[in-house]
Amino acid sequence: MDNFDFYSPTYFAFGDGQEKRAGELVRRFGGSRVLIVTGGGSVHRNGAFDAIASSLDEAGILYMELSGVQPNPRSSKVYEGIELCRRENLDFLLAVGGGSAIDTAKAIGVGVPYQGDFWDFFCAKAQPTATLPVATVLTISAAGSEGSNSCVITKDEGMLKWSMNLDLIRPKFSILNPKYTCTLPAYQTASGAVDMMSHICERYFTNTTDVALTDRLCEALLRTIIEAAPRAIADPNDYAARADLMWAGMLAHNNSCGIGRVQDWASHQIEHELSSFYDCAHGAGLAVVTPAWMEYVYRHDITRFAQFAVRVFGCEMNFVNPEATALEGIQRLREFFRSLGMPVTFAEIGAKAEDIPDMVAHRAQKPNGFPFGNFVKIHPDDMTEICRLCCR
Amino acid sequence: MDNFDFYSPTYFAFGDGQEKRAGELVRRFGGSRVLIVTGGGSVHRNGAFDAIASSLDEAGILYMELSGVQPNPRSSKVYEGIELCRRENLDFLLAVGGGSAIDTAKAIGVGVPYQGDFWDFFCAKAQPTATLPVATVLTISAAGSEGSNSCVITKDEGMLKWSMNLDLIRPKFSILNPKYTCTLPAYQTASGAVDMMSHICERYFTNTTDVALTDRLCEALLRTIIEAAPRAIADPNDYAARADLMWAGMLAHNNSCGIGRVQDWASHQIEHELSSFYDCAHGAGLAVVTPAWMEYVYRHDITRFAQFAVRVFGCEMNFVNPEATALEGIQRLREFFRSLGMPVTFAEIGAKAEDIPDMVAHRAQKPNGFPFGNFVKIHPDDMTEICRLCCR
Repeated sequence: MDNFDFYSPTYFAFGDGQEKRAGELVRRFGGSRVLIVTGGGSVHRNGAFDAIASSLDEAGILYMELSGVQPNPRSSKVYEGIELCRRENLDFLLAVGGGSAIDTAKAIGVGVPYQGDFWDFFCAKAQPTATLPVATVLTISAAGSEGSNSCVITKDEGMLKWSMNLDLIRPKFSILNPKYTCTLPAYQTASGAVDMMSHICERYFTNTTDVALTDRLCEALLRTIIEAAPRAIADPNDYAARADLMWAGMLAHNNSCGIGRVQDWASHQIEHELSSFYDCAHGAGLAVVTPAWMEYVYRHDITRFAQFAVRVFGCEMNFVNPEATALEGIQRLREFFRSLGMPVTFAEIGAKAEDIPDMVAHRAQKPNGFPFGNFVKIHPDDMTEICRLCCR
Repeated sequence: MDNFDFYSPTYFAFGDGQEKRAGELVRRFGGSRVLIVTGGGSVHRNGAFDAIASSLDEAGILYMELSGVQPNPRSSKVYEGIELCRRENLDFLLAVGGGSAIDTAKAIGVGVPYQGDFWDFFCAKAQPTATLPVATVLTISAAGSEGSNSCVITKDEGMLKWSMNLDLIRPKFSILNPKYTCTLPAYQTASGAVDMMSHICERYFTNTTDVALTDRLCEALLRTIIEAAPRAIADPNDYAARADLMWAGMLAHNNSCGIGRVQDWASHQIEHELSSFYDCAHGAGLAVVTPAWMEYVYRHDITRFAQFAVRVFGCEMNFVNPEATALEGIQRLREFFRSLGMPVTFAEIGAKAEDIPDMVAHRAQKPNGFPFGNFVKIHPDDMTEICRLCCR
């Protein structure tokens, strides 16, 4: 186990009806003039917005709304939010929705007190030193942004999907009501489950030794998601399954299962190119990339992949041929994604083999573009090969 | 899963050498005049105190020491610390040691700004509304107080071992260096492992339904401790085992595995009487009480005890006779405690069957003395029976 710092100071209020505490919690964490950041309108249709608005009204808190954040959230909306906060002298950001609304709020938060262009923080030109407080009411479990230190924004010009990670941007509080996830389309529920599982896998596949405890925590979360996701899809109103998924999504990304180990993140990097090029759902892109990445790298540590197969999917260990067990685990993961209705090939998300060189070139534009990943270092040729494995 | 709030804002710095950051961290969390609270002197012998003192000196932070906190920490030492902080105008508490030093610091923290007797907080006469900031450098993993909202103090008069629980007293930061646990006597290592396992079991045995995720987390922690504790005892310098135990001890009690479920805590309540009467190590008392409590209550939910046996100890499920599996799990737990060198009967900790009525009467003095526990409500007759099961 490596030395580590762990800091997850977010106050979580979890369960049905907790959104009624929004006013009390905004007050407790120092807000009085709030920008509510929302997406395409589902939070108006499912009643979440009204419940929060009533709660803020009761607490005497002024609020305005910035709506229309889209999936793979764009820098243009961040600029709009920064302008609005400055003009109206707003002092608190409350994201209502999923990862896109939250990440937009986080980016606005660090952008408001900064004199320069907020994008500087994403291209490593500057480090934020101040932020407006950010809080969330989560209605889509997937990204884990409600408890994480990360934020991913896509720059409209060039479709650069880049990220910023630091403790400063962890939400002050997050309200998680699983009931709001019951009205999600099955595709989005499945996509969220894949995203969570990928957040765990990115941490699980490591070269750090002596990681018994965090291995067990990763496996516990993966098994829970594997049990809960099909139930939530079969019966959208299965509250217990929704609740397990929602809390697992938070734990998958607040780093409780990733501390003390070098993490990988290669699949996420490749997926960011996919969603840049084809605007696919992040989880759908990950369902395609993750098993292909695994097939490309598993020989690097067959034992770890066999452990994954046995402990996560309950495969029987093949002591004569551990590689067979390792491969069985990868195959089980791909079948699981498919069983959730997820795409598992380039063709199924509308991606094209002939675009692979352009995606590799686009990736190379990023600061420290290549190599990426830590379990196995991914160079341009490796990324090309992994993308080809997605085309079968 | 029940609705819940979860808040674990402590900043954790984990690993070898992290104590050198004490000065930086005290500064970051607003301290300038520090009371260092220590126990019987081990932190002077193992170098921890000197490393911390140097770090505070470098950061220009003034400090004084309150030493001599004993196991099952006493109210008299708390009064002494409150006096000292007031007299010397100290503004920050840094506990260096294990749960006793930390709980003493927590009690001093809420006592200093309070006009009345700090014991009011323990007998539910008042709720603390302010505290001096408390931080810890952990050198003994067991109590989990470094990340928890709880504090247990024994009042000298009457040997009342009572507790206080609230988020206000969670440490600002905790430094955990597993190396300092390498010099612990085997008995104390074992005792710590039992304490952690008990913190998890108190959460695991619940009547709350739909707790799949937290069940898995509890099981992950228990399996890790079961693997790591014998290794740490066989080779005291096994850093990986020490590190797993140390972080597991924190997770066992910061409530990450207990959220959304009604917890039990009956074994702890009974053990508090044992350590009041015989001043035994808390973990040793728990090793005696916990399996006896299990034998007394398991029929209440045989399925849950069978799950415990199968998932935690790898017992094979007896589908014809699940009760046999349930009992096998309890037996395996007792054998595990014994294999660590722990007592498992009253006689082995010097407790006497004839004292049982006095212990039950002493318990009855507590605010809300009976019934206690939630998985099964424990009335005086039940406590008597559980204690008798400890006498075999």
